[in-house]
Amino acid sequence: MLLYSLDLFGTAVFAISGAWVACRKDMDIFGAMVLAFVTAVGGGTIRDLLLGSTPVFWFQDTLYITVIFASTLLAIALRNWHEKAQWPLQVADALGLAVFVVIGVGKALAYGAEPVVAVMMGVLTGCGGGAIRDVLADEMPNVLRKEVYASAAIAGGAVFVFLNPVLGYAATTVISASLVLFMRLFALYNNISLPRFQLPQVSK
Amino acid sequence: MLLYSLDLFGTAVFAISGAWVACRKDMDIFGAMVLAFVTAVGGGTIRDLLLGSTPVFWFQDTLYITVIFASTLLAIALRNWHEKAQWPLQVADALGLAVFVVIGVGKALAYGAEPVVAVMMGVLTGCGGGAIRDVLADEMPNVLRKEVYASAAIAGGAVFVFLNPVLGYAATTVISASLVLFMRLFALYNNISLPRFQLPQVSK
Amino acid sequence: MLLYSLDLFGTAVFAISGAWVACRKDMDIFGAMVLAFVTAVGGGTIRDLLLGSTPVFWFQDTLYITVIFASTLLAIALRNWHEKAQWPLQVADALGLAVFVVIGVGKALAYGAEPVVAVMMGVLTGCGGGAIRDVLADEMPNVLRKEVYASAAIAGGAVFVFLNPVLGYAATTVISASLVLFMRLFALYNNISLPRFQLPQVSK
Repeated sequence: MLLYSLDLFGTAVFAISGAWVACRKDMDIFGAMVLAFVTAVGGGTIRDLLLGSTPVFWFQDTLYITVIFASTLLAIALRNWHEKAQWPLQVADALGLAVFVVIGVGKALAYGAEPVVAVMMGVLTGCGGGAIRDVLADEMPNVLRKEVYASAAIAGGAVFVFLNPVLGYAATTVISASLVLFMRLFALYNNISLPRFQLPQVSK
Repeated sequence: MLLYSLDLFGTAVFAISGAWVACRKDMDIFGAMVLAFVTAVGGGTIRDLLLGSTPVFWFQDTLYITVIFASTLLAIALRNWHEKAQWPLQVADALGLAVFVVIGVGKALAYGAEPVVAVMMGVLTGCGGGAIRDVLADEMPNVLRKEVYASAAIAGGAVFVFLNPVLGYAATTVISASLVLFMRLFALYNNISLPRFQLPQVSK
Repeated sequence: MLLYSLDLFGTAVFAISGAWVACRKDMDIFGAMVLAFVTAVGGGTIRDLLLGSTPVFWFQDTLYITVIFASTLLAIALRNWHEKAQWPLQVADALGLAVFVVIGVGKALAYGAEPVVAVMMGVLTGCGGGAIRDVLADEMPNVLRKEVYASAAIAGGAVFVFLNPVLGYAATTVISASLVLFMRLFALYNNISLPRFQLPQVSK
């Protein structure tokens, strides 16, 4: 199926981004494998745990693991192209985000989640892995502080929840994923971020 | 029920504290939502995962999510009152801690937990969310290093486990929660902390 | 059983290492308990969550908790011997790693895991607790960046998966655990690390 292929594609892209963070952080090859793994499947894994869908999704279908390991080796081999790959990688990452979000929302709905919870599960599936990657790399998760990344996921998830009863799964998936992809690329291209709200100076 | 109302109150207070940490850390509004969410329900969520009580508690009852989102918006709107709110917020936080602990111990006992495990689940419910908040904010969890916070939770949990078979759930809940509240406020007022044990200088 | 005794021994050793990290990080006694706990049972706990084996393993058998609390008090009492204990502690830690890995692989296989997943569960059981400890101590997990620690776990896990159908559980356990122990001690003694792959300077 197309969605499954795109899911594996997103897994590969997320894994590469995780492996390169590991390289940047001076980790060894095991660290690169771990960071690639948590970036690629971390969000979906936490979603599965919260839903009670265990063993988790990559437990039976080891193709995910194969893709992640191959992507990690590829990322290490091509690490000198890291900077040149920034722009294509971000586009690919936006596609991965779009696919992960619709898969996450769909699975949550299949488990009987309320609409708002389903949207959250979609956002978690799309953004959770990158957040765990950043925590393991001893950084504050990037998704919490800048750019339109989570917002694209939220918008896509909300549209999915609304359209799904009307248009059915297939059409809803295409529309929602396209929306995420478009919003993410539009924000990237125009360098748009969400507003921040700073506190007045605190005496601490 | 009173306990449910207090639970939602504690959820709101914890959410506000999470949102303000997000503001202090220069996160955007999505980051504030996430930090509010993990602070408010993170401890109870991990408790549910460990118990095998899935889907987790906020999955069906979306009132928690509504309270958290409203509290986050309130916290952002009132962020200039951050410093003035320190003292009332800490009192409210102590009440939230007390409620979360007794709920956590009660749920663990209902799942057949041994006494010591039930106390740990209560402490986790009360203190776990704040610890995850600190990890996401790239800080060492405050609860691990200072003040009588976890100790109040432990004492309340232990009293709960002992009194529950004797006095029944209602009376035990009131007494244990009052103990947590009293200990926490007493320590705050008198600025009491647990002892630390430093290592001799390590050659590293 | 011997394996159970060694499991408790490994639990004690991991708990001591966690407690000493807490001391080094200037945490209080509650922080030491928490760090000892997550170091000792964190890896196995996440393994159980991923497998859907809930409540988790230390929920019924509170002997783990007793061992951890006693080890923490011991570690605090003996904290001045911290430096002198480095070498014997690393040897004991290697034994704990070996035991945790074979237990983790065995449990995953019992849950019907594919070979590669079983190896990952073994590595997680052995290395996960230390990684959580480091995250809570606001450091990058050591296991991701240096020394032959995870590699020993991987090798032992892989050998376990291959030999188990041939030699049976008992012999396989002994051989695999010995391999982990040997590789870890050999690497320690010779100060061997995995290669790292640095990125070219990134403009960021």
